[in-house]
Amino acid sequence: MGGADLVIASNRGPLSFVLDAAGQPTPVDAAGGLAGALHPLLEGSGATWVASAMSEADRLAADAGLMSQPGLELEMVRPDLVTYRMAYDVVSNATLWFCHHHLFDLVRRPRSGRLWSEAWDAYRSLNASFAAAVAEVANDGATVLVQDYHLCLVPEMLARRRPDLKTVHFTHTPFADPNMFRVLPADSGRELLSGMAAATACGFHTRRWEAAYRGCCADRGVEPGPSFVSPLGPHVAHLEERAASASCGAARARIDEMVGDRRLVVRVDRVEPSKNLLRGFWAFDELLETHPRWRGKVVMLALGYASRETLAEYLAYATEVEHAVDRVNERWGTGDWSPVVLDVADDPDRSFAALTRYDVLLVNPVRDGLNLVAKEGPLVNETDGVLVLSREAGAFEELAEAALAVNPYDVADTAAVLAEALDMAPDERARRAAALRELVRRRQAGDWLADLSAAAGR
Amino acid sequence: MGGADLVIASNRGPLSFVLDAAGQPTPVDAAGGLAGALHPLLEGSGATWVASAMSEADRLAADAGLMSQPGLELEMVRPDLVTYRMAYDVVSNATLWFCHHHLFDLVRRPRSGRLWSEAWDAYRSLNASFAAAVAEVANDGATVLVQDYHLCLVPEMLARRRPDLKTVHFTHTPFADPNMFRVLPADSGRELLSGMAAATACGFHTRRWEAAYRGCCADRGVEPGPSFVSPLGPHVAHLEERAASASCGAARARIDEMVGDRRLVVRVDRVEPSKNLLRGFWAFDELLETHPRWRGKVVMLALGYASRETLAEYLAYATEVEHAVDRVNERWGTGDWSPVVLDVADDPDRSFAALTRYDVLLVNPVRDGLNLVAKEGPLVNETDGVLVLSREAGAFEELAEAALAVNPYDVADTAAVLAEALDMAPDERARRAAALRELVRRRQAGDWLADLSAAAGR
Repeated sequence: MGGADLVIASNRGPLSFVLDAAGQPTPVDAAGGLAGALHPLLEGSGATWVASAMSEADRLAADAGLMSQPGLELEMVRPDLVTYRMAYDVVSNATLWFCHHHLFDLVRRPRSGRLWSEAWDAYRSLNASFAAAVAEVANDGATVLVQDYHLCLVPEMLARRRPDLKTVHFTHTPFADPNMFRVLPADSGRELLSGMAAATACGFHTRRWEAAYRGCCADRGVEPGPSFVSPLGPHVAHLEERAASASCGAARARIDEMVGDRRLVVRVDRVEPSKNLLRGFWAFDELLETHPRWRGKVVMLALGYASRETLAEYLAYATEVEHAVDRVNERWGTGDWSPVVLDVADDPDRSFAALTRYDVLLVNPVRDGLNLVAKEGPLVNETDGVLVLSREAGAFEELAEAALAVNPYDVADTAAVLAEALDMAPDERARRAAALRELVRRRQAGDWLADLSAAAGR
Repeated sequence: MGGADLVIASNRGPLSFVLDAAGQPTPVDAAGGLAGALHPLLEGSGATWVASAMSEADRLAADAGLMSQPGLELEMVRPDLVTYRMAYDVVSNATLWFCHHHLFDLVRRPRSGRLWSEAWDAYRSLNASFAAAVAEVANDGATVLVQDYHLCLVPEMLARRRPDLKTVHFTHTPFADPNMFRVLPADSGRELLSGMAAATACGFHTRRWEAAYRGCCADRGVEPGPSFVSPLGPHVAHLEERAASASCGAARARIDEMVGDRRLVVRVDRVEPSKNLLRGFWAFDELLETHPRWRGKVVMLALGYASRETLAEYLAYATEVEHAVDRVNERWGTGDWSPVVLDVADDPDRSFAALTRYDVLLVNPVRDGLNLVAKEGPLVNETDGVLVLSREAGAFEELAEAALAVNPYDVADTAAVLAEALDMAPDERARRAAALRELVRRRQAGDWLADLSAAAGR
């Protein structure tokens, strides 16, 4: 039959395509952290990966058989584009993402007007397409690993359709606090929780998000079912190989040249409100104001990549980020020194190279499911760099003892901690860097996958 | 000595003054709901009320002895105006109010830059002035009732200075969820909680806010001390007297004339982001769109009063509210029908008269400590009006069984519930109205004051 004993379902697949000049689909590096982390784990596993065709290029690629990968079957779900935009943009990204990250300006959003029910129908329909595709390819008793907030209804749909399957749902975002979850239309909220609760088990990156999920279930009168905590870790061998590559070396040489003998503060994020770029730049501005001796002596290299540009909120945010950077540079810059270098060209080599040689890595999200950069950075960094880490990142639970903690909402605190990091004595830097590497190595990507399979009862 | 056995401390006193054309202070009705509710309770009690001189007019009035009231001593705290603006505008209103009501657009606010510590010093200094004034006037072993988020540090200051006193702190706002409370600078947050925890007891309007306070203490490592729940109720005799007054009758006649034989939806609020006026107007717009038979047949009378106009956020909000109203009226209005009448002239008689004759009262705050309008309306309404009440208002705990509940974030739900209220059969309206009156009468203002005194161990 060619059916699978292990099925992965996620919105984004391991490969994304764009159309080249001749109109032919060409693969690009998948931009999402999740697909990038899963892909090397699953190659050669014999699993089937069910994902959305997110664009016309993806559809053409699937038709042309370009989605196939060694030892990994791919199955594309092909919703019509209107349904997909409603489910993906309106429900998943503009609502569920904002809800779980506490990003709503609650005075004005969400609005949940009469078009909501149409959008929710699209979300339900997309989930049903996934459930149908999984039901089609899964062998009897197979394990199904359903990823993230895009697919919360799949477990219940599969439980009805294929009760033989063991379905694990894993949430990569934070989970909303019960009072924040209440901002969703009540019926949709309950349907979402019931959808998850029907899984064999629901997984989260930290105890905190698991507790929030269970709190939401209690508040909405839904019996939550089994849940577990398993933080994702980096794919160590893959990263070490990459750090040793020629392209990384070349990118690093270019950074060396730009930075010179100045100190280097690095951040690497999607340009995304939850990542808190604004307060990062405001804090750097305040550092230069309150610690004059660092003027001319430190560069902040902010490497980003544009994100979700179909949402007005993201376009506005990207503009605010640019203005914040301009303001710092206009205020403090000199002929031979730009305090902040913002690069949103999405150059993975450059981002990776920056991680190998930062003096300070700033990871200050307002709320973050895990934050893999906070783990990847310390793993590949070769300069005893200091990790300045938000208390609100999921990774903080694992890394707290060796990172410097910041309250991401507190610009004065962030500035003070950046100064502390820049001033840290070499032996203390070395001690903390070694401790971080040790903490990160404890949990690698394979451990996470093993936890999910164990939760399925395999 | 003339000392007091009962001392009230609140930011706003029972009387506020403005300067008349001749530059002389003249009293005006205090705009805050709290002072208005407490004043009739305390007249003749022999208590001393300690409050801030909030303006130059208040200072002059205090100097001229105009603050005195029958059987109620007044003691004015007179911070310098810079300190007062920092403590009142920056800390209390722009930060603590936003925090407790979950109003921050967290992507951008709070910022907590280097000026925060100066503002917090001002808050501490204002609290110290209150503690000093209370310590000065309180008799040995007196009961001190400290009101609200402006004065959280007073209990600890008094515990150190006058351990003989029994200090009760009462919070009239919601209390922030633990994760929202974390957005405050960590030191200030802990100082605030410790300040409250030193009280003989801390009171809240609902179990929900009490639980949030205790959750914040647990999250921040502060031992909370005793707490209690006591929802404030209206001053029934005072309201009934007012409903029977000639000025209320005249105002009601003017409303009758304006409304004619149309149905009347009323809201009465401060123009304040937590009151959720925007979604109220969006929902009314959606009602007219989805229920065409109500076009021309219903008027929404929105009575407000301007608030905190020194804060940019409030000015922006007031403008958005006006635009939302204009949009509904331009879209649906006809030569002889304005769907929404917005009046922010702060005419207390008109607001009160509207409560006596609404068909539907819309109270849809995104989060509200209690909401006295939701209790006062049903008490004085004479037309079997229906109460549409947000689940996020503190009063919902008491009134749920007889009100129609709305999710205040859900415009479609609000529109549907407004339609349900307008369509309700007369006998069902009468049954619910009677049930609401009965529920409201169970807890009157005197019960609340008695609870506070009991919590002090008097």
